[in-house]
Amino acid sequence: MRVALKIAYDGQRFFGHQRQPDRRTVEGECLAALRSAKILRDPRESFFRSASRTDRGVSAIGNVIAFNGNLRPEAIVGAFNDKARDLWAWATAEVPATFHPRHAHERWYRYHLYEDLSVDALREAGALFPGQHDFRSFTSDPPAGSLSVRRVDVSASHDAILVDVRAPSFRRGMVRRVVAAMVACAREELRLADIRAALAGTRHDFGMVPPEPLFLMDVSYEFPFQVVRKPKALDEWGALRLDARLRLRWLGSLGDAISSGGAT
Amino acid sequence: MRVALKIAYDGQRFFGHQRQPDRRTVEGECLAALRSAKILRDPRESFFRSASRTDRGVSAIGNVIAFNGNLRPEAIVGAFNDKARDLWAWATAEVPATFHPRHAHERWYRYHLYEDLSVDALREAGALFPGQHDFRSFTSDPPAGSLSVRRVDVSASHDAILVDVRAPSFRRGMVRRVVAAMVACAREELRLADIRAALAGTRHDFGMVPPEPLFLMDVSYEFPFQVVRKPKALDEWGALRLDARLRLRWLGSLGDAISSGGAT
Repeated sequence: MRVALKIAYDGQRFFGHQRQPDRRTVEGECLAALRSAKILRDPRESFFRSASRTDRGVSAIGNVIAFNGNLRPEAIVGAFNDKARDLWAWATAEVPATFHPRHAHERWYRYHLYEDLSVDALREAGALFPGQHDFRSFTSDPPAGSLSVRRVDVSASHDAILVDVRAPSFRRGMVRRVVAAMVACAREELRLADIRAALAGTRHDFGMVPPEPLFLMDVSYEFPFQVVRKPKALDEWGALRLDARLRLRWLGSLGDAISSGGAT
Repeated sequence: MRVALKIAYDGQRFFGHQRQPDRRTVEGECLAALRSAKILRDPRESFFRSASRTDRGVSAIGNVIAFNGNLRPEAIVGAFNDKARDLWAWATAEVPATFHPRHAHERWYRYHLYEDLSVDALREAGALFPGQHDFRSFTSDPPAGSLSVRRVDVSASHDAILVDVRAPSFRRGMVRRVVAAMVACAREELRLADIRAALAGTRHDFGMVPPEPLFLMDVSYEFPFQVVRKPKALDEWGALRLDARLRLRWLGSLGDAISSGGAT
């Protein structure tokens, strides 16, 4: 039976996505966990595929993998999570034998900006992207013809500005170049007209923002996934979140102490 | 010349404070860094001492170490930070040859509560501790006679309740038992009268809250320390803080996705 899993990973703990010898990658760790949990018998016949090969450093909440397995979908989540390190499967769907997760309805990426920028200026630049355009200036992939971006939303949260970009598919480096162009506009280092010209076909190098603040939030299809909640996994998640909160607290208190000349 | 350093460390990265063979401890890492940076020539003649031996898991912002060194205090901070892993020296003072950092004016501990508790109820319980009392129920150390706590402050921050406890000195496990008693009162599992009786000499086991949310914020003396800011260290701090913010963001987004049935 063919199964799709939604998986989350912290990109800082992996050396990119695609299998590589002697490197810990997302695909490598997925396959190791599936094999070790005896979910896959033979990787060559399992038709293992990923929805998105995220760049090194990029994190995911809802990337999707699919494979031919020999357990019921609900049983797979627990078995996978028991074996996978720094990877969380959290939802599952039974899919047709020919299903390839690359063929998605929509992908949603979120970029986190920890810089004091004008949300309005970012929105103004972001509004240029939705629709059908020439995205050759926004990818390192070979010429790809025109592409379609559905939405670019900018919102302020308590400590970061969030840039949410949605499209049926993306090319390599595309979100990081789109956000780089938006940030350059907000910093007044670039004019909106430069983005308009690039989207009309004039080549321009906007550079790339760093990969770590980029999360692949979700990949969606025409069918739903079932969320599988396991108490043990929720406990583990709670412990990891406490660790992360305390780490950030410690760094914040250290910063206060250094900048004020004493702890506050 | 004898030098005192304020040092910060994340307790989750060490196996406690006191030197142990084959374990990475705060004192062990301090001594290794001091030796490797050639600040100490002979550890046996350096009269190396710590202000507080924090429990395993407890973090510090401003613990204090002192030693006989052969560099100017300002030069020591950079040399130490170049060699120490997961330890930050950030302030320094030249001290008399006989100085032992244990003899402090005041120690300030902060406990972080990530639980929905009444701040008023915590304050009411915390108000019982300041002054001279019998703290035998609040330590695992041998009978210590009466001790004096100066202040217990409770405040709410954006994601945690902070309990700040100040005293000239503490006994082993004391802050974690004081906070355990305060939390038990706020949960209505304990009466204020039980704390009053214990402080008057009736033995009671209040248990201990976990060590990780406890930070030794500062140890103060009758003399000031000079804060030493190095641009490289500030850059490194900024990068660590971004890592920590993204880690917490990733866990938060994962939690949202699991609890809502999809990323939000």
